[in-house]
Amino acid sequence: MTRDEFDALFERLRRDRLPGLPGRTQRVVAAGLVRTGEVVAMGRPWDSVPGPDNRRPALHLMTELADVTPPEPTVHKDFLASDFHGKSQTHLDALCHIAYRGLLFAGVPAREVVSSRGACYGAVTDLLPGLVGRGVLLDVARLRGRAWLEPGEAVEGPELLACAERQGSPLLPGDILLLRTGHLARRRSLGAWDADGLSAGLHPGAMHVLHESRASALGGDGDSDVRPSPVPGVHSPIHVLAVTAMGLPLIDNMDLEALAETCARTGRWEFLFLAAPLNIPHGTGSPVNPLALF
Amino acid sequence: MTRDEFDALFERLRRDRLPGLPGRTQRVVAAGLVRTGEVVAMGRPWDSVPGPDNRRPALHLMTELADVTPPEPTVHKDFLASDFHGKSQTHLDALCHIAYRGLLFAGVPAREVVSSRGACYGAVTDLLPGLVGRGVLLDVARLRGRAWLEPGEAVEGPELLACAERQGSPLLPGDILLLRTGHLARRRSLGAWDADGLSAGLHPGAMHVLHESRASALGGDGDSDVRPSPVPGVHSPIHVLAVTAMGLPLIDNMDLEALAETCARTGRWEFLFLAAPLNIPHGTGSPVNPLALF
Amino acid sequence: MTRDEFDALFERLRRDRLPGLPGRTQRVVAAGLVRTGEVVAMGRPWDSVPGPDNRRPALHLMTELADVTPPEPTVHKDFLASDFHGKSQTHLDALCHIAYRGLLFAGVPAREVVSSRGACYGAVTDLLPGLVGRGVLLDVARLRGRAWLEPGEAVEGPELLACAERQGSPLLPGDILLLRTGHLARRRSLGAWDADGLSAGLHPGAMHVLHESRASALGGDGDSDVRPSPVPGVHSPIHVLAVTAMGLPLIDNMDLEALAETCARTGRWEFLFLAAPLNIPHGTGSPVNPLALF
Amino acid sequence: MTRDEFDALFERLRRDRLPGLPGRTQRVVAAGLVRTGEVVAMGRPWDSVPGPDNRRPALHLMTELADVTPPEPTVHKDFLASDFHGKSQTHLDALCHIAYRGLLFAGVPAREVVSSRGACYGAVTDLLPGLVGRGVLLDVARLRGRAWLEPGEAVEGPELLACAERQGSPLLPGDILLLRTGHLARRRSLGAWDADGLSAGLHPGAMHVLHESRASALGGDGDSDVRPSPVPGVHSPIHVLAVTAMGLPLIDNMDLEALAETCARTGRWEFLFLAAPLNIPHGTGSPVNPLALF
Repeated sequence: MTRDEFDALFERLRRDRLPGLPGRTQRVVAAGLVRTGEVVAMGRPWDSVPGPDNRRPALHLMTELADVTPPEPTVHKDFLASDFHGKSQTHLDALCHIAYRGLLFAGVPAREVVSSRGACYGAVTDLLPGLVGRGVLLDVARLRGRAWLEPGEAVEGPELLACAERQGSPLLPGDILLLRTGHLARRRSLGAWDADGLSAGLHPGAMHVLHESRASALGGDGDSDVRPSPVPGVHSPIHVLAVTAMGLPLIDNMDLEALAETCARTGRWEFLFLAAPLNIPHGTGSPVNPLALF
Repeated sequence: MTRDEFDALFERLRRDRLPGLPGRTQRVVAAGLVRTGEVVAMGRPWDSVPGPDNRRPALHLMTELADVTPPEPTVHKDFLASDFHGKSQTHLDALCHIAYRGLLFAGVPAREVVSSRGACYGAVTDLLPGLVGRGVLLDVARLRGRAWLEPGEAVEGPELLACAERQGSPLLPGDILLLRTGHLARRRSLGAWDADGLSAGLHPGAMHVLHESRASALGGDGDSDVRPSPVPGVHSPIHVLAVTAMGLPLIDNMDLEALAETCARTGRWEFLFLAAPLNIPHGTGSPVNPLALF
Repeated sequence: MTRDEFDALFERLRRDRLPGLPGRTQRVVAAGLVRTGEVVAMGRPWDSVPGPDNRRPALHLMTELADVTPPEPTVHKDFLASDFHGKSQTHLDALCHIAYRGLLFAGVPAREVVSSRGACYGAVTDLLPGLVGRGVLLDVARLRGRAWLEPGEAVEGPELLACAERQGSPLLPGDILLLRTGHLARRRSLGAWDADGLSAGLHPGAMHVLHESRASALGGDGDSDVRPSPVPGVHSPIHVLAVTAMGLPLIDNMDLEALAETCARTGRWEFLFLAAPLNIPHGTGSPVNPLALF
Repeated sequence: MTRDEFDALFERLRRDRLPGLPGRTQRVVAAGLVRTGEVVAMGRPWDSVPGPDNRRPALHLMTELADVTPPEPTVHKDFLASDFHGKSQTHLDALCHIAYRGLLFAGVPAREVVSSRGACYGAVTDLLPGLVGRGVLLDVARLRGRAWLEPGEAVEGPELLACAERQGSPLLPGDILLLRTGHLARRRSLGAWDADGLSAGLHPGAMHVLHESRASALGGDGDSDVRPSPVPGVHSPIHVLAVTAMGLPLIDNMDLEALAETCARTGRWEFLFLAAPLNIPHGTGSPVNPLALF
């Protein structure tokens, strides 16, 4: 895809967009998907060990232990720190996270995000009510009959539609779509690699599907972008189209393996999806532990 | 309450306890409470300003901005750090957080929590599927017809039962109970005070009610403990009874004001409650942003 | 002092300036001041307790203890974190720390300091060889015969010269000058106050003295600025004149009490001064523990 | 060396030891070594990039920039965080850092270091006056006529003495001895390796030399220990003997390359050595930037 084609796509996708969490009716319908009470968590463990795909490890330190003659009770505490947008944890990207040509979503200037105050537009606090709605797993690896897609493989729009159809889970407005490439299955089998350089993910053209189905959010077991980028000069085109053009929050680095197993076992690829970002004023996103409730 | 009485209570409450999140059936029933799709978030803003009730402020730093000639897109990032068990944010206490007489829940030695590895028993990862079930707001301030309870006022068991009854929300097994003392209403009106020294909360005897109703978790707009403690030599008796005797996770420092307003407006004090801790291996708890879905 | 007068002063002071650590000859001469081998440390304790003059406390956490059956030896470790430019510790300001009218020292644009890379001009690493030279304590509180200057009291240039003369320590090129207002003596007697709003320090006009004596650095028990600022619209005029006009590193929040006592006892207000910033690439300064060697 | 031999050595070395910084006379003599005023800094850059020898990278984040319409001046700030005992920076080990058989230096129980308060014995604040005295570089790589020692190569006591003699720098009481193995020269040529597993350093028997010469501190371009350890069951025997038996602070991860070049060029391997730890109450050590002044 040329840069001009990408820019034309950007313009088409951003037209008439309202950023949108699922609406009330969509949430009620999604709650109706709960039938067995089974829950699957999708948050990956905080990763404090450096590696080829973890250049900025999270910190988790024990800070207080029951090691002095105590008043009762004794209390154990820890300390967390992270640059959460890296690969060290599952996290949500708020709308202020990505700017294209100097502009955030809705054409707001990027300078609304400043070092001393954080984001004055598009902060994660806009998402405080959480992403709560119908979740649909698009298990493209399974559709292809493979354990995983190889890093660098792109997923195009027709395949997303075929996947939804084959699974019996047609896309509906407000859906939170989860793309499974089998990233973690591959990582567990073959070890980590530099996923910032090479990863399976969506081709930019596929965002038409999310636009037309009026999805409200996109998550993935990678970060949704195919890498290397098919668009010269744009390193994360899916991030640009989803966040900056369409106003869709992204959820990166999800663990979709247990979810895929549950969907396959139960024959249901739709569920009540729940992800509540932490309340971080002026923040650009949040670590999360998304849940699927069946 | 004397220390001996407290210890006898501890023994009674810990007998025959299984730590327990709501079960599958309870979750399905709770999902059935969703009727309007309204969502209320209960996570307080990360508080990075020191104050009388915030001795260990959270950190939120902007770390990357679009301030160099960029490749596209430009990306905004931030950094989070916190000793989350303090008052700087809404958080979940896992079972390893509290030890009494050198023992964790189920009599496990406190030395299972070590500085170099964290918690080897009762870690927050035991709660990864989240607290998902029927939530009930026990709005004791409203019951008393007051904007808030004064710091130091205790709530006893019969009042909890009366509150549930008056609200038409009888306590059921698996419930996640939320105690509203009006802490934040008072803080907003009168300013912060040292809530570690003086706060409204439960009298230890009230834990009988949670034991008998088989609640699965307890949250509050304070930290559930009345302070100063009514038990000599035990600074947080509710924490001891809930976490260490009964195996109930606690959620501290919730913002229950919007929830109380919604409950009063709709006449419903029960809802689908959702709180998913971050996936922190060996951690003692997690910051959370709990949601109520009506 | 009007803003125009300040700007004129800024222009005069910045003319013909080279940023300058003490030179080799000055260091040799300074080493010759060592006669008794007595050492006085001037670094204040890392302050992790919030207070009126410590809005961003430093963090010091124990992270590893000998609490598991160990291989030998057992090792104790800790973790440090700080936004060191605050009041929580003694620190050095590098030249990139302060910009006036969008310009750093020598007219370099402030945009040379960027979030993603840090300082590309004037970083603390320019000061790696440390501030090593003749130190002179200018004990203005003692000169006035008082335990401390009251917050808000300004020190003018003639008083600096009178102080140096009275002490028998005339100012020489390359000197590292330390201004004692008795800040810590007052803090220890009367408790902390908001020193960002009200503190004793230099009047901007006094910087003429440092310019003419060709001082190489300036330190103080406050942050050298009198507050409130005597210059409308410029909140830290001494920082601007020292760092941005003259290229002088500043050392803020020093403990000069023991040094003052030693100077008075020995009758010597000059010594070998040593302060070595940490090697922080692209950093804007560093915590330090300066030493005086007699 | 068997474990029994090691334990016997431990007992011999710890007999009659006083922990000791250089005394006043030694400092005065050391200051007399300053002749040219040349300064060499030995602090390695804070390393925030993970690698085989940097498992716990330091953090350096820009936190405030001149990116809003400002009051004057605009201020640039950053944030530092580190678990400094790792390989990410040059640091000092205080006496509380290492315990052997449950005991710190002077037989003090290791339980004097606790999570909630830090070190109540042997804290880095005992070293606040800094390590200031005669430094001697023992350039063993140069003595062997090689660019570096290979990882795993041990240096024995006689070689230390031969090195000092060849350099014309006999060991004197109170000396701060710096062992150069060429670690950084090798790292720069061949890349990083896992130095915790394999590194050149001292054989435990060599500590006799430091005992007899009454050295006051030991530094190195590694961490002074040869690895793998020649003592079964003791992973860092030099740390045990230096810190726990003899009360000698250690300085790990120094950059000795520029120092070695200066020593060779000037023909002088002795200098005024200066290292001032930060004032961290109850801390186990400190990042430092040591200086050599010629």
